[in-house]
Amino acid sequence: MKLLSFKVNEQVKFGPKVKKEEAVWDVIEIQNQLNVLKDFPKTIIDGIAHGYEFVEQVRKLVEAAQNHEDGAQFKLAYSDIEWLSPVPRTPKNILCVGKNYSDHAREMGAEKAPEHIVVFTKSPTAIAPDESTLPVHADVTDSLDYEGELAVVIGKRGKNVPKAMAFDYVFGYTIANDLTARDAQEKHKQFFLGKSLEGSCPMGPYLVTKDEIPDPHALSIVTKVNGEVRQNGSTKDMLFSVSEIIETVSKYVTLEPGDVILTGTPAGVGKGMNPSQFLKAGDEVKIAIEGIGTLANRFA
Amino acid sequence: MKLLSFKVNEQVKFGPKVKKEEAVWDVIEIQNQLNVLKDFPKTIIDGIAHGYEFVEQVRKLVEAAQNHEDGAQFKLAYSDIEWLSPVPRTPKNILCVGKNYSDHAREMGAEKAPEHIVVFTKSPTAIAPDESTLPVHADVTDSLDYEGELAVVIGKRGKNVPKAMAFDYVFGYTIANDLTARDAQEKHKQFFLGKSLEGSCPMGPYLVTKDEIPDPHALSIVTKVNGEVRQNGSTKDMLFSVSEIIETVSKYVTLEPGDVILTGTPAGVGKGMNPSQFLKAGDEVKIAIEGIGTLANRFA
Repeated sequence: MKLLSFKVNEQVKFGPKVKKEEAVWDVIEIQNQLNVLKDFPKTIIDGIAHGYEFVEQVRKLVEAAQNHEDGAQFKLAYSDIEWLSPVPRTPKNILCVGKNYSDHAREMGAEKAPEHIVVFTKSPTAIAPDESTLPVHADVTDSLDYEGELAVVIGKRGKNVPKAMAFDYVFGYTIANDLTARDAQEKHKQFFLGKSLEGSCPMGPYLVTKDEIPDPHALSIVTKVNGEVRQNGSTKDMLFSVSEIIETVSKYVTLEPGDVILTGTPAGVGKGMNPSQFLKAGDEVKIAIEGIGTLANRFA
Repeated sequence: MKLLSFKVNEQVKFGPKVKKEEAVWDVIEIQNQLNVLKDFPKTIIDGIAHGYEFVEQVRKLVEAAQNHEDGAQFKLAYSDIEWLSPVPRTPKNILCVGKNYSDHAREMGAEKAPEHIVVFTKSPTAIAPDESTLPVHADVTDSLDYEGELAVVIGKRGKNVPKAMAFDYVFGYTIANDLTARDAQEKHKQFFLGKSLEGSCPMGPYLVTKDEIPDPHALSIVTKVNGEVRQNGSTKDMLFSVSEIIETVSKYVTLEPGDVILTGTPAGVGKGMNPSQFLKAGDEVKIAIEGIGTLANRFA
């Protein structure tokens, strides 16, 4: 199932993509009008916290609409909604793994790949939707750079999660652009400031439930800037796998439903080019991950 | 005004300390029963977001109780409440300034003090109350260390806040212990993991409103472990002042009401001793900051 979050009539809602249509099922409205279920989460994070039961509930609501003579009223065309990031606000900062592809570690000047997972965070105020226009923040940085990444959405509270149990804590996946002000990242040593500018964490378009991604380490990941391929990698090349990341992070940090972990970026960022090529107003970045979709943003 | 957060009958509440008594005014109950105000925030973060107006509202509620014949019923003795951290949950990770006292930068092995502010974060799941017993996490770290710090509580949403306007964005102050797993801090390069263990951010006891602290750079800060003075500093020795921190952080990160910024620790941490002395079960750490109070925690 491909879930998305959106705004309509000033209300924040969520729902599954309508198959083969550019539209979303307004499951909250289906429940309100047809009263199919005993109760149903009001926010996507509440839903995520109910795991697969939530996915089943959403399916039931869609079926109820499909079987209803006026069911089509519950479909909203993409053109009639305001897109949001699938998780519009994470409960804590977005968790990010640094240098998780060896060729990227090298292009960033590291002599060797990290022996231990490097984890930093981005402010949740940086989250932005698919297809949104983002600021280049020319007043603060002259080196805003893209990083296409597979994002893991956590479905269950957990600490000390063993590797073998890690996928029990995964709700699904989306795509993120871990935009980085390279000058600030260097100047301030710890990465947080350079990673947290407003709009520097677009995510989307969909939150794809884990049943649709049997192996998160067999996905191509391609980033294009103005149509030119810059990153052309595969999630098979991650140094630390999704389950290793969850094991190590949860040793230190309590994971919560709606937390998002960015799993690192393959080689091909602007800083790694010779000469470096950073983002400028007018640029368009598209990140495609197999089985999830394409995250597209323009810069102004 | 000294505000605290607490739990009573499974409800999370907040209120001001009763002057000269070990008790708190249950302002939410005063409002519920005496209906003094048109409306009143339900959570301390909602209150903080209303700034000085909120402080005035709390004063009115306390006066109403004092003028009421049965007003004493609204006083709850400290022994009858469960203490919480004054901000029980921050809207994003806790923001922390690293190496903000030159003698601490030196004891940590830095050749010189940082030229630019170093900012890292702690997970909000690490927040713990005053007087709570905290885990030493012996399964994960053999080097849990204390860091006594002045914590600034943000009252207003802001970005690009100029230095001269910084205090408009401050709601008040509290005390924090920026507990750190030194081994994890080194091993994982970025500080986040080693700073985010559960219980590793006790804060309290009070959130002191800014009118009571005319100069946050004239406060003594003393940390004792089992009664022995380990840190004996003054906030005048900060390398980057509170207003400089707010200016620089808000250039990159949107600040929100309820955000907490830890301003760094003076010399005297366990790692800086020869030999290093880390926390062990049975230890008690007390951090006293002038005008705010004492934050005390035991380890088990």
